[in-house]
Amino acid sequence: VKIVALCGGVGGSKLITGLHLEFPDDTLAVIVNTADDVILHGLNISPDLDTVMYTLAGSSNPNTGWGLEGDTFHGLEMMRTYGHDAWFKIGDRDMVTHLLRTAQLAAGGTLTSVTADLAQRLGVGRTILPMTNDRVVTRVRTRGGWLDFQDYFVRRGHTDRPLAVEHVGAAQASPTPQVLDAIAEAGIIVAAPSNPVVSIGPILTIPRMLDAIRDAPAPTVAVSPIIGSRSVTGPADALMQAVGFEPTVAGLAEMYKPWLDTLVVDSRDINRAGEIESLGLISKATDTLMPDVAAKRRLARFVVEAAR
Amino acid sequence: VKIVALCGGVGGSKLITGLHLEFPDDTLAVIVNTADDVILHGLNISPDLDTVMYTLAGSSNPNTGWGLEGDTFHGLEMMRTYGHDAWFKIGDRDMVTHLLRTAQLAAGGTLTSVTADLAQRLGVGRTILPMTNDRVVTRVRTRGGWLDFQDYFVRRGHTDRPLAVEHVGAAQASPTPQVLDAIAEAGIIVAAPSNPVVSIGPILTIPRMLDAIRDAPAPTVAVSPIIGSRSVTGPADALMQAVGFEPTVAGLAEMYKPWLDTLVVDSRDINRAGEIESLGLISKATDTLMPDVAAKRRLARFVVEAAR
Repeated sequence: VKIVALCGGVGGSKLITGLHLEFPDDTLAVIVNTADDVILHGLNISPDLDTVMYTLAGSSNPNTGWGLEGDTFHGLEMMRTYGHDAWFKIGDRDMVTHLLRTAQLAAGGTLTSVTADLAQRLGVGRTILPMTNDRVVTRVRTRGGWLDFQDYFVRRGHTDRPLAVEHVGAAQASPTPQVLDAIAEAGIIVAAPSNPVVSIGPILTIPRMLDAIRDAPAPTVAVSPIIGSRSVTGPADALMQAVGFEPTVAGLAEMYKPWLDTLVVDSRDINRAGEIESLGLISKATDTLMPDVAAKRRLARFVVEAAR
Repeated sequence: VKIVALCGGVGGSKLITGLHLEFPDDTLAVIVNTADDVILHGLNISPDLDTVMYTLAGSSNPNTGWGLEGDTFHGLEMMRTYGHDAWFKIGDRDMVTHLLRTAQLAAGGTLTSVTADLAQRLGVGRTILPMTNDRVVTRVRTRGGWLDFQDYFVRRGHTDRPLAVEHVGAAQASPTPQVLDAIAEAGIIVAAPSNPVVSIGPILTIPRMLDAIRDAPAPTVAVSPIIGSRSVTGPADALMQAVGFEPTVAGLAEMYKPWLDTLVVDSRDINRAGEIESLGLISKATDTLMPDVAAKRRLARFVVEAAR
């Protein structure tokens, strides 16, 4: 099977690990959100690409989900010694990823080619595809005004109530040929349990992306990052409300129904199956938490079989 | 007294430490070689500026003379994991200096303004002046052809016999106004015991620099980095031969005589005083090795008093 997954960062990467380990003989391409990419200290930082890459390289930090296992933060301390902001946690090893990406982009590489090079050098045997080579920046409106995503999410710890979300540049961005090819050739398209508004959302906002998915022959399946009326982690619930959806699996079904066939929800939400199916989707319930590798693999298999 | 020192990296910085500590109430401006600056992985690296800055900040690595005390090299290991060259030893904290310099230069800063900002942020109370804001690159010719300086010096560990030296871009470079002002207003001009060919040499090669020093009212004094027919450290001896000078204090006197008043040599070279004085220079002999802070201070005082 050609598995194509749409993914953000930490939350979704757990399912990517499961797909990677559970389907070693199938091809796996991950289309990754880049709308929370940020340029800091002159470095091109792509948090979601890095999380997926480190995850597939088997070197991600198991405690945080982001960054590299065993990384140190001595450079960050030095940044503070210089009196500069150090709210974005760049590890000493992680810094080199940003450095190489920045240098390769400056030398004329595309984010797609640079990502492929870095991933290959780390021994990743899967395909990691940025959703676009163009610059898209998610911003969140709060009472205090519009904040760039990392400002909202990391610097201010997503403590502000989000009132609106926009993806600046998305309307002018193009999906890459690699992304369009992957979608067209997919045997199954999986939306990981990433934030529907700021991870999966930006991918689908790129012009032609939604049509490409709808036109593709592959069945589509998504895993809900919402259980009950709360996100498993992060501010998905508040962000769904900010864009006008109920933060429940029913709200998610409403959001995803333009392109989705099957929604995998947590067993605790089995009572919402009727609402989901009334929207024309198939509802499948299972334990969606992934505290360990066994759970990641089990959910990955469930998802792929749910879609078939 | 306004002390103006010409300096390269590790060797010369020992005297800078001595001048800094021994003359706390005098002004000290250090004009620093930038001809072994290098761009690696997209980072603007200025090894000599950094060595002088870390030295004056009291945070240089006492074991190596370059880099920061207690720095780690985890990023460098990651660079190797990515399959990239890691011959130039950038520490994790040191990396941030290059990162900030690169970002500030990209934002339109001059090397002079960026250096002043970084030094001030590290609490340096002295003036550190790059010799020029223009790009000058020292190259060394070996049997295998021309090598960029860091290639010759660091990557290949200066094991090749140097046959010629050039400072590409020097003829088109200008001394900065800050450098010319410092020289014009100096009470004493000191050439540190840095490599005369690749540290002091590039500074003097910049058009107008030699005239500025000759026109300045200040007496000039230099400390020899050569004892007997060998450099105290590094390839100064071989490089002097490559540019046609005997690697002795007599050869050094010949090199420096167009602008120098007083040459401070090691006591072991006291027998060469006649040769030095026959070139019209004053020769002063003392113990020029600086194994500890006391020796650095003692030599600094000797040098300043020799010049008066």
